[in-house]
Amino acid sequence: MSDKTTTPQRVGVIGLGAMGLGTATFLLESGLDVTGCDITPKACRAFESRGGHSVGSPAALAEHCDIVLLVVVNADQVDAVLFGEQGLVGRMAQGGLVMQCATVAPSFARRLAERLEAEGLQMLDAPISGGAAKARDGQLSVMASGAEAAFAKAAPVLDAMAATVYRLGDEPGVGSSMKLVNQLLAGVHIASAAEAMALGIRMGLDPDTVFDVITHSAGNSWMFENRIPHILKGDYTPLSAVDIFVKDLNIVHETGRELALPTPVAASALQQFTAAKGAGFGREDDAAVIKVYQRLSGIALPEAANDDGEA
Amino acid sequence: MSDKTTTPQRVGVIGLGAMGLGTATFLLESGLDVTGCDITPKACRAFESRGGHSVGSPAALAEHCDIVLLVVVNADQVDAVLFGEQGLVGRMAQGGLVMQCATVAPSFARRLAERLEAEGLQMLDAPISGGAAKARDGQLSVMASGAEAAFAKAAPVLDAMAATVYRLGDEPGVGSSMKLVNQLLAGVHIASAAEAMALGIRMGLDPDTVFDVITHSAGNSWMFENRIPHILKGDYTPLSAVDIFVKDLNIVHETGRELALPTPVAASALQQFTAAKGAGFGREDDAAVIKVYQRLSGIALPEAANDDGEA
Repeated sequence: MSDKTTTPQRVGVIGLGAMGLGTATFLLESGLDVTGCDITPKACRAFESRGGHSVGSPAALAEHCDIVLLVVVNADQVDAVLFGEQGLVGRMAQGGLVMQCATVAPSFARRLAERLEAEGLQMLDAPISGGAAKARDGQLSVMASGAEAAFAKAAPVLDAMAATVYRLGDEPGVGSSMKLVNQLLAGVHIASAAEAMALGIRMGLDPDTVFDVITHSAGNSWMFENRIPHILKGDYTPLSAVDIFVKDLNIVHETGRELALPTPVAASALQQFTAAKGAGFGREDDAAVIKVYQRLSGIALPEAANDDGEA
Repeated sequence: MSDKTTTPQRVGVIGLGAMGLGTATFLLESGLDVTGCDITPKACRAFESRGGHSVGSPAALAEHCDIVLLVVVNADQVDAVLFGEQGLVGRMAQGGLVMQCATVAPSFARRLAERLEAEGLQMLDAPISGGAAKARDGQLSVMASGAEAAFAKAAPVLDAMAATVYRLGDEPGVGSSMKLVNQLLAGVHIASAAEAMALGIRMGLDPDTVFDVITHSAGNSWMFENRIPHILKGDYTPLSAVDIFVKDLNIVHETGRELALPTPVAASALQQFTAAKGAGFGREDDAAVIKVYQRLSGIALPEAANDDGEA
């Protein structure tokens, strides 16, 4: 799809959480020159234990990198690592490429590209999807948009990190728009999986049987199949946390507001994730949204899953 | 799973709509002795044109059948064909089996079994799933519960009509509970598919690209994959109508009310289907729920899909 440059690119990965650490590690193992960056020393040490080199601030990484991936949580963090006191901008060499991999509002992504262009930097709007395990295996999906030159410069990185790169045109914001459509669906499907399982349990159905029947029926979804096993095991170790969907469905809501498009189904799912966060489950796996139904109805969830040990 | 009787069973199918006609035809072709019944002469003629025998009232069928499938739309129709002036009950021989195949409230199914038992009839609570095409091919899923004797008597019919029979225990109502869980999910997934596509279009995304990306991403659902092509083709010929989900999500709502379990995500989807019905799309394909978003936001749906020819 694009010419590969013959000059080895120096790659920075800012944000060494579950997704960033896996991505940085896989890029390193793919033979790329990778520098990691996280404000948390522990995250830096994790990357170093895998053979990587890391720094504590974007400023310390800026001069060493031609391409920087932002694998941070939200728009505020994107803003901080680029334009903050220890930010990349003003330090990274002209013509450098910023790959914006976070889930952000499309309007934010568009403005960001303009601000970076004004500083002589390129941007690829490149949200990633697939989870930590796929990040570690270089099997992510990337929903990307940006200038042809940005795609060309990013090619060695995209080739390594992704199983699938959706090239969605040359306008920044399109990648983020597609990611938002996916997050709307993913969030609603998790909340409705929880709601359906709660109703099933309340009606007296066996949870394992519900899982078996639904995964073979028209009511199935990728998220039902993926998340309900967490509920069946009573294991809410966060692979992706409730807080993530509070954030992402709020971006859906804000984008709907900007565009005057009502999103009532997503809004109801957002309320359930908000309630889960309010009830103290924000950092648990997103399947813990079922605990909202448990708290309100007293249903017995499988195994140790009941948050208060009762029921 | 059950002994087959050596006496050939005489089977009645009441309700010759899309599901009932297909089921009756396939049972006939499987060598069973089938009598069809519908209050609509046109539906009867459709079955007769396929070689079947049909009658205009349950009363006319009662004495000829050992097993009667109710493939009607809702609880009111179930009640009418059983207990109405021209109903089955009081005419069907003692020990006869009623297979309740409609989507009804679990509480209704339980009461129904009691009422039938008082009349000397057996009942299998046996909602069906899969759509008209699978009915025609004997490939339905049946979510069934009832007494062992009822399963044994139904075996030749279940074997013929279904690809999968979920045996969910001996209590009537369990089959209907499982069907309700499926309908909650199916309804929410259709409404959220429409909402996500509407948002995508409003953000400027290409609808075909959205379909391609989402069906390969974590936001996918069985319903997204099945229904969005109707939107992409602008074809709202009803395979399953908006009205069906107005009905089924109202059963979810009523059952949640009975059990004091809130179902806010299903409630938001119900409101969208209700709006679609109110806007005049009740008899269109359920994917037409996207026209609610179209009417409110002016987005352009693919091809001839805009309900008013504008946009």
